[in-house]
Amino acid sequence: MSQKPSIPKGTRDFTPVEASRRNYIFDTIRNVFKEFGYAPIETPAMENLSTLLGKYGEEGDRLLFKILNSGNSFIPLAGKIPDDPSLIDSNALSLMVSDKGLRYDLTVPFARFVVQNQNELTFPFKRYQIQPVWRADRPQKGRYREFYQCDADVIGSESLFNELEMVQLIDAVFKCLDLRVLIRINNRKVLAGIAGIMGYPDRLIDITVAMDKFDKTGLEGVREELLQKDITPEGLARLEPLLLFKGVNTSKISFLRKLFEDNNSKIGLQGMEELDWLFKRIEETGVEQAVELDLTLARGLDYYTGAIFEVKALDYAIGSICGGGRYDDLTGVFGLKNMSGVGISFGAERIYDVLLCLDKFPENILDAPQIIFFNMGDKEAVTALGYIKQFRMAGISCELYPQAVKLKKQFDYATRRGTSRVVIIGAKEMEAGEVTTKNLITGEQKTMEGKRFLRMFGGVV
Amino acid sequence: MSQKPSIPKGTRDFTPVEASRRNYIFDTIRNVFKEFGYAPIETPAMENLSTLLGKYGEEGDRLLFKILNSGNSFIPLAGKIPDDPSLIDSNALSLMVSDKGLRYDLTVPFARFVVQNQNELTFPFKRYQIQPVWRADRPQKGRYREFYQCDADVIGSESLFNELEMVQLIDAVFKCLDLRVLIRINNRKVLAGIAGIMGYPDRLIDITVAMDKFDKTGLEGVREELLQKDITPEGLARLEPLLLFKGVNTSKISFLRKLFEDNNSKIGLQGMEELDWLFKRIEETGVEQAVELDLTLARGLDYYTGAIFEVKALDYAIGSICGGGRYDDLTGVFGLKNMSGVGISFGAERIYDVLLCLDKFPENILDAPQIIFFNMGDKEAVTALGYIKQFRMAGISCELYPQAVKLKKQFDYATRRGTSRVVIIGAKEMEAGEVTTKNLITGEQKTMEGKRFLRMFGGVV
Repeated sequence: MSQKPSIPKGTRDFTPVEASRRNYIFDTIRNVFKEFGYAPIETPAMENLSTLLGKYGEEGDRLLFKILNSGNSFIPLAGKIPDDPSLIDSNALSLMVSDKGLRYDLTVPFARFVVQNQNELTFPFKRYQIQPVWRADRPQKGRYREFYQCDADVIGSESLFNELEMVQLIDAVFKCLDLRVLIRINNRKVLAGIAGIMGYPDRLIDITVAMDKFDKTGLEGVREELLQKDITPEGLARLEPLLLFKGVNTSKISFLRKLFEDNNSKIGLQGMEELDWLFKRIEETGVEQAVELDLTLARGLDYYTGAIFEVKALDYAIGSICGGGRYDDLTGVFGLKNMSGVGISFGAERIYDVLLCLDKFPENILDAPQIIFFNMGDKEAVTALGYIKQFRMAGISCELYPQAVKLKKQFDYATRRGTSRVVIIGAKEMEAGEVTTKNLITGEQKTMEGKRFLRMFGGVV
Repeated sequence: MSQKPSIPKGTRDFTPVEASRRNYIFDTIRNVFKEFGYAPIETPAMENLSTLLGKYGEEGDRLLFKILNSGNSFIPLAGKIPDDPSLIDSNALSLMVSDKGLRYDLTVPFARFVVQNQNELTFPFKRYQIQPVWRADRPQKGRYREFYQCDADVIGSESLFNELEMVQLIDAVFKCLDLRVLIRINNRKVLAGIAGIMGYPDRLIDITVAMDKFDKTGLEGVREELLQKDITPEGLARLEPLLLFKGVNTSKISFLRKLFEDNNSKIGLQGMEELDWLFKRIEETGVEQAVELDLTLARGLDYYTGAIFEVKALDYAIGSICGGGRYDDLTGVFGLKNMSGVGISFGAERIYDVLLCLDKFPENILDAPQIIFFNMGDKEAVTALGYIKQFRMAGISCELYPQAVKLKKQFDYATRRGTSRVVIIGAKEMEAGEVTTKNLITGEQKTMEGKRFLRMFGGVV
């Protein structure tokens, strides 16, 4: 009769230790967001498919989890299904029985939210949102079908100070998490300028997708990919010096300025000026993490229009752990024009892996109860509960072992829970108004007056 | 081209004020759970349908949100759909294209979790879980298709101290939320004893469902419903004195003891002894909220076997805002026997409504930034960012207005954000190393030395 329990592939249970570690990450990020003046919002897990479809490219549409309509949802399929399986178009049929999907990221729901709730919001609107998203991707190591995103965005302001703020947010979060990172910065307008100089102003995506791989495949790989995509050797020749240019951020900017001036690239110059502004302010305000202008940084999402950011851990090899950028028309598709914004997203799952491998989680992360009272029988336990109440009033976590079983079993439980202090109130102690307390780490054991015990360990006397 | 944005019916967006209020409820409950020694777990939003189906009754199966399999999910339907819509069995078809569903509550996933992760857990296992659940119910006022549950359970212990702990948890949570409540308690064994005395030991569910309505329909309603269900007038005559019995908790227990002794009801006596134990301990440990033994309390879910709890707000009329009970075999269906447990679930949405209507949310719930610095131009703003950094290091939330627009616009923004203090650093102030700060509530404005300002308002000097 019994079922062997399992969960859908690509999803996970989190045990107390894992959940506590995740809460530590979420709490740290949330506190930084709050300190910077961001306000929380939440959106439903389910969005209408009309909101989601067409926003993430063809690949994204395919990776949406669709939810079956409830009730007699299959009626529209009457007479519509061919007998030949090879003629079945699952995608088309799914839209006849489903009009909702699980959110794929937090950005599109945020754009929808801003438009729908615009009359209740104060612009520039600074929001943070920490919620799970779902993707029907092929599960593999480090890639899950349910995972959390931690996003902060300012919308309704073109000010470059908001781009500076994203860098400062990144700086502050990773400082709090005690991680050393490299913040890579680029600007889509600079990339557009480069594509123009190469002679392909309309091939920005192809070019940036190839450039983005420079890290992994080197110049040879980029060259090969672009030639395959019919970029001429002359175009390539104009790209190569940029990819190979070495130097500090300021010399990269000088190099770009000359390049765009020589080629009279208006968009390139604008992007370069924005980068120049941003790097000057970063210098002046003293960002502690390493910051690099990286001309090969492209980022995949089409909606970025200005600054783009990506963050890598310096002491552990893993993909980017945070990314974001400026977008000029995120809400346009929902009917609200001229809403420039900038945002970043922290990847909690990868940050988890980095913290774990570098042993950067705080010790006692499990929030083990600070004191466990042994159960020596009903009367004694009721006395213990009196103490427990006074400790809890002082915000000290403690608990009573629920059964009056052998002491060894209670000691084992306390040890496994990670508590350092246990308290025994037997008949003798109860009569004398005393308690016996043992430190499980040092082994030290003492019997003392109850009030003294409360006072010593922070209870309300 | 633009879409009018909307969200699925029965779901909600939460604006900053609403999200902050909800976080206040979740944080309060979470802190009490932690103080009591409960540890967090999380489970995925999606469970296999095999885990969910058959656990919530026929109605529950119908209310599950099912997720379409990804890929060529409709192939199994080839040749299976009749042309006549009236012959379509949507329920059967849905199971051919879906093997996952959104969780319906947190209890079944918890049972599945305990069995699947049993080797990593310390028993008795005390867990809390605060996550959303989904039900494809007809949306109506106060009933949503996505809502949060806040659950705490102890599993792996039969001790009645855990039932006492549930009462103490309820007591502590509502004390923290500053709400007066009535905690109603009953015991399923007592109800079984009563059904036995009525002559229908196997009709417990029918009888308790009818009894549960005593509150609303009175004796006449209960009588009518039970007669319709073929309970004899003789059976009814044995129930009525119980329903009508008035008195304090101890006299109810004496009444029950005599009744079960006279009728030689073993199960009834056992339930009565458990209630007697529980009410004595409640008395001894001094629970502050009102606690009542209510023989008409039944609760719907079949899996309860011992104590059952339900909580009502005393100062606002709304359904139960918390409920729970003892279960003896929650994990049996997943292959782990003899795991008695007890748990409660707080209904965050209703608690929200009660707090709102009774005006019990703390003031400044929005966490408005404590200080907003005006933007007087790039150079001045960089100086402001120096102060901002030092305030944030001290945990004080503050922000820079992103653009150097007219002061009136910046004042308006600060007011709408709910900040009480703004700071102006113009060219003059910058040169003198001073700041001008204005309290938006009193209107008081002062110019002072920068260091003094930091010291006065809690920044790191």
